[in-house]
Amino acid sequence: MAQLRIALAQTDPAVGDLAANADKLLKWTRRAADRGAHLVVFTEMFLTGYPVEDLVLRRSFVDASIATLEAAARRLADEGLGELPVVVGYVDRANLEPRVGLPKGTPLDAAALLHRGRIVTRTAKHHLPNYGVFDEYRYFVRGDRLPVFRLHGVDVAIAICEDLWQEGGPVSVAAEAGAGLLVVPNASPYEREKNDVRLELVARRAREAGCPVVYVNQVGGQDELVFDGDSLVVDAQGRLLARAGQFVEDLLVVDLELPAASADARPGRFTVDAKDGTMITVERLELSADPVAPYAPEPPRIADRLDDLAEVYAALVLGVRDYVAKNGFSSVILGLSGGIDSALTATIASDALGPDRVHVVLMPSRYSSDHSLTDAHELVRRQGVHARVAPIAEIVNAVEKEIDLHGLAEENLQARIRGAVLLMGLSNEHGHLVLTTGNKSELATGYSTMYGDAAGGFAPIKDLFKTMVWDLSRWRNAQAGRENEFLHGFAEPPIPEHSIIKEPSAELRPDQRDTDSLPPYEILDRLLIDYVERDMGRDELIAAGHDAELVARVIRMVDRAEYKRRQYPPGPKITPKNFGRDRRLPITNRWRETAP
Amino acid sequence: MAQLRIALAQTDPAVGDLAANADKLLKWTRRAADRGAHLVVFTEMFLTGYPVEDLVLRRSFVDASIATLEAAARRLADEGLGELPVVVGYVDRANLEPRVGLPKGTPLDAAALLHRGRIVTRTAKHHLPNYGVFDEYRYFVRGDRLPVFRLHGVDVAIAICEDLWQEGGPVSVAAEAGAGLLVVPNASPYEREKNDVRLELVARRAREAGCPVVYVNQVGGQDELVFDGDSLVVDAQGRLLARAGQFVEDLLVVDLELPAASADARPGRFTVDAKDGTMITVERLELSADPVAPYAPEPPRIADRLDDLAEVYAALVLGVRDYVAKNGFSSVILGLSGGIDSALTATIASDALGPDRVHVVLMPSRYSSDHSLTDAHELVRRQGVHARVAPIAEIVNAVEKEIDLHGLAEENLQARIRGAVLLMGLSNEHGHLVLTTGNKSELATGYSTMYGDAAGGFAPIKDLFKTMVWDLSRWRNAQAGRENEFLHGFAEPPIPEHSIIKEPSAELRPDQRDTDSLPPYEILDRLLIDYVERDMGRDELIAAGHDAELVARVIRMVDRAEYKRRQYPPGPKITPKNFGRDRRLPITNRWRETAP
Repeated sequence: MAQLRIALAQTDPAVGDLAANADKLLKWTRRAADRGAHLVVFTEMFLTGYPVEDLVLRRSFVDASIATLEAAARRLADEGLGELPVVVGYVDRANLEPRVGLPKGTPLDAAALLHRGRIVTRTAKHHLPNYGVFDEYRYFVRGDRLPVFRLHGVDVAIAICEDLWQEGGPVSVAAEAGAGLLVVPNASPYEREKNDVRLELVARRAREAGCPVVYVNQVGGQDELVFDGDSLVVDAQGRLLARAGQFVEDLLVVDLELPAASADARPGRFTVDAKDGTMITVERLELSADPVAPYAPEPPRIADRLDDLAEVYAALVLGVRDYVAKNGFSSVILGLSGGIDSALTATIASDALGPDRVHVVLMPSRYSSDHSLTDAHELVRRQGVHARVAPIAEIVNAVEKEIDLHGLAEENLQARIRGAVLLMGLSNEHGHLVLTTGNKSELATGYSTMYGDAAGGFAPIKDLFKTMVWDLSRWRNAQAGRENEFLHGFAEPPIPEHSIIKEPSAELRPDQRDTDSLPPYEILDRLLIDYVERDMGRDELIAAGHDAELVARVIRMVDRAEYKRRQYPPGPKITPKNFGRDRRLPITNRWRETAP
Repeated sequence: MAQLRIALAQTDPAVGDLAANADKLLKWTRRAADRGAHLVVFTEMFLTGYPVEDLVLRRSFVDASIATLEAAARRLADEGLGELPVVVGYVDRANLEPRVGLPKGTPLDAAALLHRGRIVTRTAKHHLPNYGVFDEYRYFVRGDRLPVFRLHGVDVAIAICEDLWQEGGPVSVAAEAGAGLLVVPNASPYEREKNDVRLELVARRAREAGCPVVYVNQVGGQDELVFDGDSLVVDAQGRLLARAGQFVEDLLVVDLELPAASADARPGRFTVDAKDGTMITVERLELSADPVAPYAPEPPRIADRLDDLAEVYAALVLGVRDYVAKNGFSSVILGLSGGIDSALTATIASDALGPDRVHVVLMPSRYSSDHSLTDAHELVRRQGVHARVAPIAEIVNAVEKEIDLHGLAEENLQARIRGAVLLMGLSNEHGHLVLTTGNKSELATGYSTMYGDAAGGFAPIKDLFKTMVWDLSRWRNAQAGRENEFLHGFAEPPIPEHSIIKEPSAELRPDQRDTDSLPPYEILDRLLIDYVERDMGRDELIAAGHDAELVARVIRMVDRAEYKRRQYPPGPKITPKNFGRDRRLPITNRWRETAP
């Protein structure tokens, strides 16, 4: 056996800011060196950020990625860090002849091993995910090599992210090559309950590869994705040895006892059946043959896990914080109605940015009930956000002098004066980002007004069903008094209890209730999960116990609202299937589950 | 040699309306039978419509597709059409074991041969496009069979759409199998100058396959895609024999002299190297061995081609007509400013729907010049569309009593009162679809207001650069007096000359001109084509002759406007790269071509 100290650099790269990412590479490598690490592993496409979408189809971008990698290797050596091997993700190209069906420039989702100022070897992701939020056949050609480098007498193999998720390929080849350790840079976005899936997966692959696995994941919000970190290390039996924090940058250092490499395995190349219909070339390299001198290992760290609601809340806070900061905003604005959706959105914003950077507008109409204003004012008092009141009655009157509106058209008008006119006007005047306050139940059923309550730049709770909005609001109130990375230290519960318990209403006409148009949310949300997230058809939904008439009605509502969802702002993905990259349907669509 | 009369059913299927598509299958098969055809070929995924996106991931949808196919086969026979073989596209499934990386339910982009009430054989697309507007690795697993059926002594092979575009695969196998004819159902969307590419491609594949090719393409608008038809038949040397009309449903009937099948080639299966790294199984079948009795062929029809501008215009008209009709609208509404963008949009709408279904609103502000109103009124007079005037000054005043706005915020307010408040209000009240009037130059540079001029359900000219807007307006005016499928019979030029020649202005502040913020459009558009459509980086743009400072400025504008484009309505794709399915970039993105 041989010892190695591995550093997992669980970081948040900036999409497109290659210079900043290179600086971070240097800084974190120095931290790892200071901790005595023998190898540091960064995340997938760390130098470019992930995902970068069509940027990889630009020659200038791929050129910059490769140039940044080369400069980073030299710079690490120049700064005295050349002896510490670094595995880092970036974008490379395969230099294949162009042909129809190949992405332009044949980019690779690549990783390199840097050592002593040189790029010792390069590899690329073999399995390309093209489902859910991923479109990687659009962007990459598949890698077909597995580097195995000897480090202090241990053979270390490199695979990338999806290579763990699909059968065969690099994991299978790592076993055949007799690797003593498999290191895996990842950019795996958060969704509820994915952590457990990930741990089981990594454990299974470790057993298949017959060696420990070091799984390093990205952290941070990027448009509708939130990367949760949760990097981990398992032993060859799949037992958890170390685990980093969730939703925070974290340098996890772990000491491993690893099998010494076989003396028979010499530098060179050979080709192996990857058990997925392809062949993979193993490239053996040697950095250093001799084991490190025996040392006393540090006790491994296993960070505490957040529970389900805490995890969702952390994802939303990080998603908002990063969208705001990375897009150059310093403050947000939103309409506060007194209802629960805007109350929770304001609270997330306060936790993400601090209440001083949160601006709320109370925009009462003739239909607003008294408690709407008092509940909103109470939230303002508890959180200390900036507030102003802007009644809409006079503007409504001015519009109705020009055009005659009734019923739904008049209801929508009120929403649009609030969203498109007042909030967007204040946003333009003062530079605040408008937060949209709609939830997933509304977005699913089309219970929202385009350019009204749907207006804004980012929609923090768009992937939360209404029942989850309530659960999360109660959870957040129960944390009052706590203060951490994701919670501002409010002494009292930040959301007025009345906003949680009162019957939901859009208050766009007298005595309106959500239940005038929608079934009770407990029933609706269960049906929406089955229809929207699980793709069940009408018969399956009825077989699953949903009321047949309700199934027909809700399916019709969901299908007809597709055009509204297309113009909705992005927001953090929380569920297995969000409205956005995850669920893609035509607007022009006569398919009716209800008419078999 | 043997004779065959082939009918190409160039049709517009309804996405998701399987019953309507099955009815159309019957109706068009009867038309083909009445014309004496020996074989009728429909388009790719005709029974489901194309594209259907995530619908193929639902079991209920794929079940319905297969059931519809089976019922259609029986119904054709019941209606006395069973003797006429039919090739038709639909969605099937491969019944593979589920695993990560495979689309749920393993759907196939399939085609079937129907004869005498039975499904004689089924095949599926082998090459899956996953670039540009296509995401087919998300949806389908690849087919690995090539059916070759003997019809009246001729061996006929079936390939599907992308199988023609990529090297190797079915075309190569058709040659090896000695096919005497290759029939190809397609759903290939329009873009400028694609027709010539398509003809050359089909000719090349005919030479490779060593036999004539029958290319049947879909027609009709489907969200942002417009299918242009342009079905064609080439001989084994690649010479054009027959061609259907563009942008219209068309039954093209062609008589072919084809090589008689070899007596050695008997029913059965064998596997062939497809020259693309895969194997394909050839399945030989026999419907009928004896040639048809000699008959006098009809002279082949080669429909006239539209020239470039006529083609673009037809695509826009069809795109608008189909979006409106297929989404259940009967009328449209738009703001008419007196400028060229709204004038052209109104004209396209009049041509698509008839002026009686077009409603325009003139919404002057304190900054509107006199000619804006007179030019707009003049268009109304020439076209006979419905018009109303709704000044915005009083509404602006009412808003400014509540909140204090300056500069850009005040400009945006005017745009939002027009778009989100007045047009959307009238849309909700009267059921008109709002048409958005922005062009591609504006969309690229962010020279538009979210929820203002960007509000609406469909954006007819969003893929036209401003210079193209002018060219197309002049072209349309020159057609005055003509009347056809795409042109309403206006006696005088429908667009006032002054709207075309005047200097463009948004008129949101005194004496505003587009050139205050933007370079002249002749220069801007050339740069945008190179940056947006050709993915050139900064250095390439400068090397291509663009001014370095302008390159920096325009790139910054384009990159910063990504968030606006995400909330823009869909509109017909005309260029090789539209804003929509074709160009996908992160909003949160620090990549700057200008900072190398």
